Parts: sequence; structure tokens; C-alpha cells
Amino acid sequence: MTETAGGKTLDVAVFGAGRIGRIHAANLARQPSVRLKYVVDVNREAAAALAAQHGAQVADVDGAMGDASIGATVICSSTDTHADLILKSAAAKKHVFCEKPVDLAIERARECADAVTRAGVVCMIGFQRRFDPTFAAVKARIDAGEIGTPEMLVVTSRDPGAPPVEYIKHSGGIFKDMLIHDFDIFRWILDDEAATVHATGSCLTDPAIAEAGDIDSTAVTIRTKRGRLCQINTTRRAAYGYDQRFEVLGSEGMLQAGNVRPTEVVAWSKRAVAIDVPEAFFLERYRAAYADEIAHFFAAVTEGKPVRTTVADGLKALELAEAATQSWREGRIVQLG
Amino acid sequence: MTETAGGKTLDVAVFGAGRIGRIHAANLARQPSVRLKYVVDVNREAAAALAAQHGAQVADVDGAMGDASIGATVICSSTDTHADLILKSAAAKKHVFCEKPVDLAIERARECADAVTRAGVVCMIGFQRRFDPTFAAVKARIDAGEIGTPEMLVVTSRDPGAPPVEYIKHSGGIFKDMLIHDFDIFRWILDDEAATVHATGSCLTDPAIAEAGDIDSTAVTIRTKRGRLCQINTTRRAAYGYDQRFEVLGSEGMLQAGNVRPTEVVAWSKRAVAIDVPEAFFLERYRAAYADEIAHFFAAVTEGKPVRTTVADGLKALELAEAATQSWREGRIVQLG
Amino acid sequence: MTETAGGKTLDVAVFGAGRIGRIHAANLARQPSVRLKYVVDVNREAAAALAAQHGAQVADVDGAMGDASIGATVICSSTDTHADLILKSAAAKKHVFCEKPVDLAIERARECADAVTRAGVVCMIGFQRRFDPTFAAVKARIDAGEIGTPEMLVVTSRDPGAPPVEYIKHSGGIFKDMLIHDFDIFRWILDDEAATVHATGSCLTDPAIAEAGDIDSTAVTIRTKRGRLCQINTTRRAAYGYDQRFEVLGSEGMLQAGNVRPTEVVAWSKRAVAIDVPEAFFLERYRAAYADEIAHFFAAVTEGKPVRTTVADGLKALELAEAATQSWREGRIVQLG
Amino acid sequence: MTETAGGKTLDVAVFGAGRIGRIHAANLARQPSVRLKYVVDVNREAAAALAAQHGAQVADVDGAMGDASIGATVICSSTDTHADLILKSAAAKKHVFCEKPVDLAIERARECADAVTRAGVVCMIGFQRRFDPTFAAVKARIDAGEIGTPEMLVVTSRDPGAPPVEYIKHSGGIFKDMLIHDFDIFRWILDDEAATVHATGSCLTDPAIAEAGDIDSTAVTIRTKRGRLCQINTTRRAAYGYDQRFEVLGSEGMLQAGNVRPTEVVAWSKRAVAIDVPEAFFLERYRAAYADEIAHFFAAVTEGKPVRTTVADGLKALELAEAATQSWREGRIVQLG
Repeated sequence: MTETAGGKTLDVAVFGAGRIGRIHAANLARQPSVRLKYVVDVNREAAAALAAQHGAQVADVDGAMGDASIGATVICSSTDTHADLILKSAAAKKHVFCEKPVDLAIERARECADAVTRAGVVCMIGFQRRFDPTFAAVKARIDAGEIGTPEMLVVTSRDPGAPPVEYIKHSGGIFKDMLIHDFDIFRWILDDEAATVHATGSCLTDPAIAEAGDIDSTAVTIRTKRGRLCQINTTRRAAYGYDQRFEVLGSEGMLQAGNVRPTEVVAWSKRAVAIDVPEAFFLERYRAAYADEIAHFFAAVTEGKPVRTTVADGLKALELAEAATQSWREGRIVQLG
Repeated sequence: MTETAGGKTLDVAVFGAGRIGRIHAANLARQPSVRLKYVVDVNREAAAALAAQHGAQVADVDGAMGDASIGATVICSSTDTHADLILKSAAAKKHVFCEKPVDLAIERARECADAVTRAGVVCMIGFQRRFDPTFAAVKARIDAGEIGTPEMLVVTSRDPGAPPVEYIKHSGGIFKDMLIHDFDIFRWILDDEAATVHATGSCLTDPAIAEAGDIDSTAVTIRTKRGRLCQINTTRRAAYGYDQRFEVLGSEGMLQAGNVRPTEVVAWSKRAVAIDVPEAFFLERYRAAYADEIAHFFAAVTEGKPVRTTVADGLKALELAEAATQSWREGRIVQLG
Repeated sequence: MTETAGGKTLDVAVFGAGRIGRIHAANLARQPSVRLKYVVDVNREAAAALAAQHGAQVADVDGAMGDASIGATVICSSTDTHADLILKSAAAKKHVFCEKPVDLAIERARECADAVTRAGVVCMIGFQRRFDPTFAAVKARIDAGEIGTPEMLVVTSRDPGAPPVEYIKHSGGIFKDMLIHDFDIFRWILDDEAATVHATGSCLTDPAIAEAGDIDSTAVTIRTKRGRLCQINTTRRAAYGYDQRFEVLGSEGMLQAGNVRPTEVVAWSKRAVAIDVPEAFFLERYRAAYADEIAHFFAAVTEGKPVRTTVADGLKALELAEAATQSWREGRIVQLG
Repeated sequence: MTETAGGKTLDVAVFGAGRIGRIHAANLARQPSVRLKYVVDVNREAAAALAAQHGAQVADVDGAMGDASIGATVICSSTDTHADLILKSAAAKKHVFCEKPVDLAIERARECADAVTRAGVVCMIGFQRRFDPTFAAVKARIDAGEIGTPEMLVVTSRDPGAPPVEYIKHSGGIFKDMLIHDFDIFRWILDDEAATVHATGSCLTDPAIAEAGDIDSTAVTIRTKRGRLCQINTTRRAAYGYDQRFEVLGSEGMLQAGNVRPTEVVAWSKRAVAIDVPEAFFLERYRAAYADEIAHFFAAVTEGKPVRTTVADGLKALELAEAATQSWREGRIVQLG
């Protein structure tokens, strides 16, 4: 923290100057009493460009972690650096915002959870979907009792196209890379934990994905400890674009969370009445969610309040991804603790 | 009426074996205690085919009108025969169902109105739109107070394509031929009468229509005696099909009546998310309405109850069409009585 | 068959004068050259009422089966009579239309399949959903290649309320009673056979259903021989009504089949913009489907063409229901032949 | 213009620190190479607060106009100050962004148009609706020929509630205050000028509005020089919220521009299937439009390109508002030059 004329300012270091780092940096710039001080990236040029844009400086990991004035870190670097940077942040008593996943290995993620707890720092995991205005409204309306007791959740989560196979090889597999968001949605919306997980899948879009030992299409079923049911369907390639929907059946009604479209144009032609396809991909679809989540993080840090997506949530989602991977690989139903 | 084992049966003569005559004949066949006895058409072949299909006989006008067992006539012949057949039906004390319009000349329509009143017979005009399930539901919900006091009505009424110019020449003009239905909707939905009418229009689809002294696109505004507002927009040619919608703004909300589509398929492609265009034309769009109106007519006749669309309604719609025609031709606002 | 002035007429016996029997009888009355001769029901009064309405006679099973003039039987009696009546129809060389399921026991259903094959009679099973205009349009558009290769199917199939527990006890369980339709949809839409079935479920709406040994909410996942995925979610009680939707993801797009609503009214109030809930239950939702399926049956019989939903389809759906029941009861993934 | 390390920076003075002034100031802060230097408001406190928020200074009109470093003015003060500030800006050779309307008097507006032309400065009028993503997409698709030749425009423009009667008294009347936006939409979308205007209306929501000599509900019809038709319906009070839609019928199809909703939640209950009402009012509905229009203005100034909404457009909209007012007051159709 730095004392300024206007009160305390929180100095922040951002790790990772890629797409998502740039989004967080821009949103961070709009928070009151928050200042981007350092940008860290192995790509010094990218770091320099982002730093220049926001009047920040380029630093390396040790420089940023060693500066006592830095009150919080925002980790948007590659997945294999997450755990290390969380542990270093905890050691340096800095609050942490970290993109999902905590780590691909559950043990390592657990280590991070322990470290931030011991250090007493805030650690928020970037499950931005919980901050999507539509998804958040559904959650609030369920909590307000609008549909009675939730009984069933159906999640449709489809990407517009698969990432390069090189990426997939190091992604931890589709369940940890892609469905981890959906597993978090499941826990958040049904407010319950998994008792059993069944996952199956296929490689239907590109044989190279199968050769890399992964699949591109999955069908997951979770039964919760309270007997509620959840089905998740995903694909790496929906020809019509990015499709992010879910619906919750409750004892007294249903709430559906739909896609967001760029415009509200309706076109009537000889053949059909047509509306826009959904927003292109996650950066567009979750634009408001990214802004809201970073505001939530800094508000929590400033006001000493708990964050909505903790490292424990990150760990639970990872356990589900692990269980689903097992279920798929071994062709069996997996019991959770 | 004919006494049968099962009670009284109402014998009916249908005039006109064209498209709409065939629809009425088929719906008539489903009414309990109603029997199609005669089909009358200048085209004897068409009459014979329709009669054969329903176990009826071919007759000429005098034969049908002269048969005392005929309790009701259903008039679906060409517009120029309507008044004559209504007057003959009234003289023969037969109940009458007649397609719109009563006549193109207001004086002649008034004569019909007087005749059926004097004769004490039921005379229903075929404003089938009042029986459309969607339109009827809007009316019922307004009447139940759902939107408070109705204040404004916007009617969109578009045909998929213009009829042959030969037809247009004898149609009485677009206001009497096409908008007469919309004028009836206006009176029915706002439950009010016109104080002033303003109509303008253009010939935008086919110069031959202009040469025939008519227009194909109109914009009508009616202000009612109670100050309510109504706008009607029509065209003879909507490239995307038959478009029949209206919306009613009330002091406490709005009700919209939308189009009916053949199926509920939603297609997601790279370019758009698309649903069906509306039902092709009036025979498809108002299929349920035609069935319900004829059932309403025979129920009213049988039970001695009033019909929902009287010859007086036909007359009022005609007066509005006349006023709109004047407004358009003379470029002025027309006051109504 | 009976020779009449107008050509051959097919005489038909309907077994079962309940709700669905009455619907079939009414639709049957509209088929050209088809005549309802007998109505058979253990409830003689119900049989008599239905017979009277359509100018038919009451008969018992032997009477109807023994009358050589009867060309086809329509079986809408209780499930436990289906197999017996199919076998008797086959023995008497009568074509058969039979409501689903063929029988609750696979062996018995197989016996029926063999019998009708040997007898060379048409045997159609009443999977009316294949004749729903929306569902049929989706199928036709898939077949026309609109979405490329189908990859994933998500079926939502929810009843508005559970039947009496007494019914449930003799229903064969939710998978045979309710999901059998969805299993047929799966085979029809994906045009593929199941390799593995996983089913789970819960009793969430009424403990009495659990006491009867059944569940009311299910989540089923099928992986096909070609690696395609299908998820089915069902409940016996959707508070908002009868919900029958599915969506098919293909390599080049998606097609969704939506619910049908009674009207196209849109209501705008302070709180929300609202449309109708779906048609109340199967009799309303599938009104057009029932009419189309019986027309299809008689057209097939008359023209000697194959029917779209054969007894083999009934058998396959039953096998899937049996596998799902096993999967749920034994908590394991079931492999199919 | 001020030379800085990074190149030229445009210094700007904002007049008016009210709601819309604050929005423009915030959006202005995001433009590259643009700096808010002065905030001017008769309410010094409001000016000081807004200036502090953006690191600007408070000035009075003469101070801001007299500073040669100010390259552009942004006028968001009350309507009666617009013309004076435009004329002063022109005299000082400053580019101008001014909220609608230019002035309530056509003569005075014309004077402004002449002044900015002579001065050679950019003058953009704040018709933000042209920058709404949905409206702009419709315009672009029309221009791309998607619906052929535009033939008819139907505009629905409804406020959620009337402003205080005190405001209405000085507003210039509903046509200049509220419909001026719709008149601009009309000219922009149909790309044509009015030949005749017919306007009628009523006071239906609050008698105090009638006492102030105004109406709250209007129905306007415009016929263009090329014979195209436009209908506009407005109300000061739509119980369900802010309703901003239009539809354009063309020779080959139709494009509709719909409302924007806060979320994409769909709620299914016993009674209805419901979505959100539209965004609350213009600040929410046109959030993106306000951002885009100010970016457009500064881009135009910087690059020396023409703006999309000129003072001539402001003048034309005002002439239409004047004509509509006459038509309504005098009960006649008004011809335009």
C-alpha cells in the first residue's frame, strides 16, 4: 500500500502480458485507489508495451515479489507458473488474483491452498463466469427462492474451435482445461458437492486430438450428495460459435441462462427469421464478467471481505476434472469423497 | 330444420365452391347437428366436386333459397353477389354467414343490415381474425384488465404478394379489399369508434397497380372518440411472407399478438440463429380461426345467441375503408360521424 | 377389406376406448376409405359411447379378431394386453397399429416382432413424436445435410406431473414408461445404435415414488457405436408444464426442436416480457402428430409401403430402457450388443 | 492542440456537468490524445466535482472560450444555451459536439449551421441512437442491400415515464423534445426527406401535461419525396419501461432493431415463460452508443473527416418536429419544401 493525497493506493503487479493480462490491466486501471506498478512477462517486449500503455514499469518476478509496496499480484501467465507465483505471493504476504486452474496437479494446488491460508492473504481464482451478469442473475434468483429447490442442471458449454494440438498436449486434457469452468458452475449453481461422476466422450472433430491422447466432445453426469442431477455437454468445435448456456430445473420452475449476442437485429427473409449468432468467444462473451470480477477482487481486498471464488473452489473444480478424466479413461463411474 | 332420430338437424346451403367455400364446407361437416345439403356455384363442376365430397347436392340459387328445409346459408361466392344473397336469405328467413365485405357500396350494405334486422335472422360476417387463438387471447386478456386502459394500437398487416391486377381492378381498392380486416381489428381491440382517419399510401411494388388506380402500401392513422390512437401499416407484398401482428399499449402494460410459424425449429449456423418464416398465407395462418368462427356461427344459431361479428360490424368496417380511401385520394384528414 | 361403390374400404377394430383410443378413432374417421367397424373395451359403456359417436359397433376381442372383414387393428388398451392383441392380430392376418410399449418384457416383445414378420402384416408402434411437425422437420433437415454429421443430441423430456403411484407400480419403471419415447427419438435422430448406456436418477418430487421402487428424475448418457453422444434429462414433474425439446449438434451447425405454445401472445409488464407456457400435456402437444401418424399407418397399409416406426423399433427402445434400468439399479455402465 | 511527448493532444472544454455531461466526460477520458481541460457549469459545485474526477479545472464560459489551447467544446448544458455556445465555439474556431436539439427555434438553429460552416469547424449533434450497435447494424445491412429498396419504416419510441411538468413546459413540446430523435432515425434509415407530415396525439397519462399545452402520446406519419412511408408511435409513459424499436420493410425482406435487455435469463413458471424487460432508460440503453459517438467525434476531428450527424441533420430534424407540431395543433397535413 502506498499513502497518497487521496488516501491509500494499492500497488499491483501483473504477471503475464498476453490477451487476458491486457484485459485485466485495463479493467484494473478503472478501479479507484488501485495502481498498476509492474508488468512481468518472459516476453519483455509484450511486458514493455502493456506497461507503457498504463504508465507502469517492467519488472522480473523477483523484482516484483521483492517490492514490499506491492499489495497484490494478478497472475495471468501460463498455467505451469501459477502455483509458483501463488506460493511466492503468499510468502511475500501479497493478495493474489490467479487465473484458473491453480495447477494441473491436485497435490500442488492443495499446497497453494494451504499456503495462502497460512499467510492470511486473499486468493481469488479467476472463474469469471460467476460474474457474468446473466449467470449471476440466475444464481441470485435461485437464492431468492424463485424456482424452489434446485433439482437438475443442464450445462451446454461449447467452444467455436479447438486450440492448436500443441496447446492441447500441455493442457491437462479437456476436463481440466475446458470443463473446469463448468465444474465450478455446477458447484456454484446447485450449491452441492458431487457424490458420483460419470464422463464419456469422443474425438469427433480432428483425429490429431485423439493422437494427442485427448477428446473433443464430452458428456458428463454428476449426481450430488443430495441426489441432484447435473449433465454437462461440451465440444471444442461448435460450427456456429461460442455457446455458453445452462438451465436449472427447480421444484417450482426453471431458470435458463442464455447466450449474449452482439446486436438485437432480427432479419426476415424468404427463408427464415434470423438473429445474431452469440458473441464470438470468451473475451467478448465475458467482457462484463472480467470487469466485474477484478472489481470484486479489489473491493474484497480493500474492505477485507471474502472473495466469491476462492482457491478452495479452484481445488474442488480440479478434483472434479480429475474424477471425470478417470471416469472417461477407465470407463467407470467415479465416487467422490 | 329437419327432424332426425338424434334431434333437430340444421340443413345448410353453401354458396361458392372456391377455396374458402371448401374450407367452410369441411369445417361445417364437423359441427354436430348440421348438414350440408346444397352447394351452389356458377361453376357447376366445382359445385359438383364439393357436393360429392360431403354427400350434398348441387343446386342453383333459387332452388336453395326456395327449399324451406334450409335453415342457414353460408355465402362464400364473389363479393358482388353478397348483398343479393343476404337479401334473399333474409327474405327466406334463413340465417346467414357471409364472407366480408357485405358489399363495396355502403348504401347497399346498409340495406342488408336493415333486411336481416327486420327478418330477425342471424347474420354473421366472416371476420375470421377475431377467432384466431392468439388474437382472441389478446382480446380476452385486455378485457380482463391485464394492461389497464388500452391507449394505442399498432397493426402490421402484410400480404406475401399482390393478387392479379384484374382482381385489384374490381376489389374496391386496397382499403376495402385488404384493410377492412384491420379496421375490424381496430374496432374490436380498442372497443372504440373512429373520430378521424388519415390515410396515405404509395404504389411501390408494381406500377400496374398504380395504373389500375390503386396503391399497394398504406399507412393509416385513426384517432378515436376517446382520444386513443391506432396506426395500421400494410403492404400487398412482404418478401418474407404473410405478416399479421398487432400490439396494444395500455396504461399498465402491453400485449403483442405475433405470427404463427409452421414449426418450432431453431437453426444455428455460422451466419445466424434462425426460425421459420410465418405460415404462408391466410388459409394456413387462420386455419384454426376458420374452424372456430363457423362453430361459433352454428352454436349461435342453435342456441339463439348473438354472434360476435354482426352485419353492423361489417358496415362499420366498410365506413372506415371508405373514409380511408377518401383521405388518401383527397389528401386530407376525414372526420367520422 | 370391403368392396364399396367408391372402391375398397378398410374396416378397422379399435381396442381401448380411453383417451388415446378416442383420439385415434377421431383421426381414423378422417382417413379416406377407412371405416371404424368395432370398438372393443372391457368397459362396455366406454366402448358403446365411442362406437355410437362414429357409427361403429361394440364387439369383444374374439368377435373382432374373428371377423375376416377387419383388415387392421388399432391397439390402445392397457400395456399388459398389447402383446396378446398383436399376436392375435398377426394370427388373423390383420395389420396392427399398437401404442407403445410392445410389452414390458423384452422376450415377449421379441415374440411379437417374430409373429408379425412371419404373418407378413404391417405392425406400426405408436411413437407419435416422430410425426410431430417440429421434430419431423428437424429430422428432414438433418437428412438433407443442413448440419453436416450429427455429433451430439441433448433431449429434455419433462412431464407436468407424476401419474398416480398405483400407475407407477405397474408401469415397468420410468425408463420403460416415460423414457422409451426418448430412446426412440435418440435412435431416430442420430441414426445410430447405443454402444454403452449410463443412467442415474433420483426421487425428488414424491417419496411415495421411491417407496414404489422407482425414481422421478433421470439423467441418461448414451455413447453410440460411431462415438456420438446423447444426453437425456427427464422429470415426472416440471412445475411450468410439459417440456419436450431436443437439440442436435452437427459438424456444421445445430438444430433445436422447441416446444409448441397455445398462442403467440407476448405480454410486457413492469416485471417481465412473457410468452405462453408450452401446450399442457401430450394430447395437446402432439395433436398434429397423432393425426399424422394414423394417416401414415393407413397410407402404408393401403399402398403396401413400410411404416416409419416398426415393431423392431419398439423392441430396440425397450432394450435401451432395460439397459438404463440396469445401469441405474446396479450403478454401472451397461454395454449393448 | 497541445504538443506533448506522445504527439498532439486535443484539449477539450465540457459545458454542463449533469448526467449526460458526466457520461461524455468519462468516455472522453478514454480517447487517445484527448484531454479534458475545463468543466463549465452554472452549478460550480457540480463543475468542481466532475473536474476533480478527471483532473480538469473549473472555468466559466469566457475563460474556456478564450483559451486558445482548447480545440473542441462538448456542449451538454441546458437547451437554451446550445445556440449561444455553438456560436461562441465557431467564433473561437473550436470544433463542437453539441447535444440535441440545436435550438428550439429553427431560425436560431439555421444561424448556428451557417456559423459553423463559415468557421470551417466540425459541428456534430448528439443523435447518439445512430451509434447504437443494433441500430447501426441495421443501417449497415440496409446499405449492403440485404433488404433491397427500403419501403416502409415503423418506429416505436416510448419512455418509461413523463418528466416533471415544469420540464415539459420549457421543452418545446413532445415533438421537439422527444420525437426529434425519431425524426433523425427516419431520415437516416430511409435516406430520404419528408414530403408530407401528419401528426396526431392525445394526452392520456396525466392531465397536467394537457394543461401545459402538450400531449403525451403521438402517432406520426411521414410520406417521403420518393413515396416511402414512415409511421412513428410514441408515448411518454410505457408501464413496462423504455421501449426503443424500429423495423424497416424493404422490397426483399425486413430488418428489425430490438430492445436491449440487462440479462439473457429466461424464467419458466406455471404462468409464463419470461425474459427481462428492456434496459431502464436512455443512459443504460444507449451506453455503448454514447461511447461510440464521442469516439467518432474525436476521430473525425483528429483525422479531418466528416461527422455522421451534422448540424444540418439537427436542423432537418427540427423542421420535422416543427411540421409535426403544426400538423397536430392545426389538424392538417403539412407539406414540406
